[in-house]
Amino acid sequence: MRIAIVGAGALGLYYGALLQRSGQDVHFLLRRDFEAVSRKGLKVFSINGDFELPYVQAYRTPQEIGPVDLVLVGLKTFANDRYAELITPLVGAGTQILTLQNGLGNEEALAELFGAERIIGGVAFLCSNRGEPGEVHHLAAGRIILGEHQRIDPLRVEHLAAMIARAGVECRATDDLRRARWEKLVWNIPFNGLCALLQQPVDRLLASPATRRLVREIMLEVIRAANLQDLSRAIPEGYADSMLEFTDNMGGYKPSMQIDREEGRQLEIAAIFRIPLEFGSSRGGALPRVEMLATLLEQVQ
Amino acid sequence: MRIAIVGAGALGLYYGALLQRSGQDVHFLLRRDFEAVSRKGLKVFSINGDFELPYVQAYRTPQEIGPVDLVLVGLKTFANDRYAELITPLVGAGTQILTLQNGLGNEEALAELFGAERIIGGVAFLCSNRGEPGEVHHLAAGRIILGEHQRIDPLRVEHLAAMIARAGVECRATDDLRRARWEKLVWNIPFNGLCALLQQPVDRLLASPATRRLVREIMLEVIRAANLQDLSRAIPEGYADSMLEFTDNMGGYKPSMQIDREEGRQLEIAAIFRIPLEFGSSRGGALPRVEMLATLLEQVQ
Repeated sequence: MRIAIVGAGALGLYYGALLQRSGQDVHFLLRRDFEAVSRKGLKVFSINGDFELPYVQAYRTPQEIGPVDLVLVGLKTFANDRYAELITPLVGAGTQILTLQNGLGNEEALAELFGAERIIGGVAFLCSNRGEPGEVHHLAAGRIILGEHQRIDPLRVEHLAAMIARAGVECRATDDLRRARWEKLVWNIPFNGLCALLQQPVDRLLASPATRRLVREIMLEVIRAANLQDLSRAIPEGYADSMLEFTDNMGGYKPSMQIDREEGRQLEIAAIFRIPLEFGSSRGGALPRVEMLATLLEQVQ
Repeated sequence: MRIAIVGAGALGLYYGALLQRSGQDVHFLLRRDFEAVSRKGLKVFSINGDFELPYVQAYRTPQEIGPVDLVLVGLKTFANDRYAELITPLVGAGTQILTLQNGLGNEEALAELFGAERIIGGVAFLCSNRGEPGEVHHLAAGRIILGEHQRIDPLRVEHLAAMIARAGVECRATDDLRRARWEKLVWNIPFNGLCALLQQPVDRLLASPATRRLVREIMLEVIRAANLQDLSRAIPEGYADSMLEFTDNMGGYKPSMQIDREEGRQLEIAAIFRIPLEFGSSRGGALPRVEMLATLLEQVQ
């Protein structure tokens, strides 16, 4: 399959490298890493075993890549206003677009530009960071849940999931993408938000009973808001506790928003906070702690 | 009147200087400023006119001062475990103790050590900062509301208020000290808390509609908690708006907790947050934003 990676940060580089290693024809659209990757390929340092791709197809513009079968979008959501410019040259008659971005609103924005029938959403539970140019670090987890933005042909999602699984990634299809998106928000909202605000990694928050309780309260606000829509199954409150235990195994992991703040980048507040908050308040849900956290983040960014 | 100032920070130095200028016999217990004040007295830079006291009675220990008519307590509340050591040598048969400290719990702790009949509480609305040793800056406001901790003799509070007023401070007596304390918390909790957390002065918070709204929501949580007790009159919700307007005139003022954090001091979280929160939750009040703010402050201090 001919695949273009748009937004080759920690997520795009990691999954792109795995897909190339599994035999797919992968084309990376690069900015920061272009020189390094063109010259010496890509190095992946992974808990599942390090590997190296000495030759990688690297590009500076989407026009050089041209139409592909699959566009994998890993952009930071604050760059979504560049969708048209970056993706249009990659789209042909049968092109599918898979967004693995954070938060809500990405599928909708892509559907508006390229047609809902092309759009697949993926929720990635991945702990990875960029290293030096041409290097990526995979620290933990990595599984992906895929779903159609509009129910058209569930089989194509099964095929995509199978291809990703052949690359060594735990991947399954869901018929309720919204539920998967909100499940990830249950983690992303407290941990990305609080770690970025306090500039402390996840283990610092979990070590103190008061912040651990706050994380849980924020998770419960998100779960209650999620359940205001007709999900295939409600998210149980116990999901908060399993996410806390899951995070206990992450050590001193810094969520992406904390790294974005450290490195002076914009924060993904719209996709991770404001769109979910709008959804919640439009359904009469009260999310005082999530709202407060979003406001504090906007004030420091 | 023979007066001892215990806790001669920005507040103690300012009011002590005004009392001395008005002819009272004032004795300052000093630590950081002892050398400077002993050598060259005290300089007050005030919006009401600068003045200088070339000779000031400065001490390193309360034993050197001995019993006084009035102890004025301006300690940071996190030093309240030093009450006995610092105040006992100053107390004689008729000594009154006036605490102008922040938050809740100070009168109760003093009453336990020295007897409730001695204790007067004062709520000071003062914007002042310490400058170089021997200097204090009065930036805005300054009025004091005085009240007995236990109703014994309202007249003595009237007399004390009159003495303070003669020193040039707007001062009145109240028969509902708790209400005055909670009114001050309506300001202290959002502004001390948010300015310290974000390391931004009050005008930065007021300039953004989202943080201005957050400040107001926090104020309303405090007002609702205050009104869970039988105050002489409930605090109206409109008090939040008048506090916002009052603060609009303060420019880039940094509340004391922000300065405490900048200077690496402990934060007054117990008196300003935890004791009010305990009160609220014991009466079934929900203060999610205040609780979250307290937790965040504890996590960064």
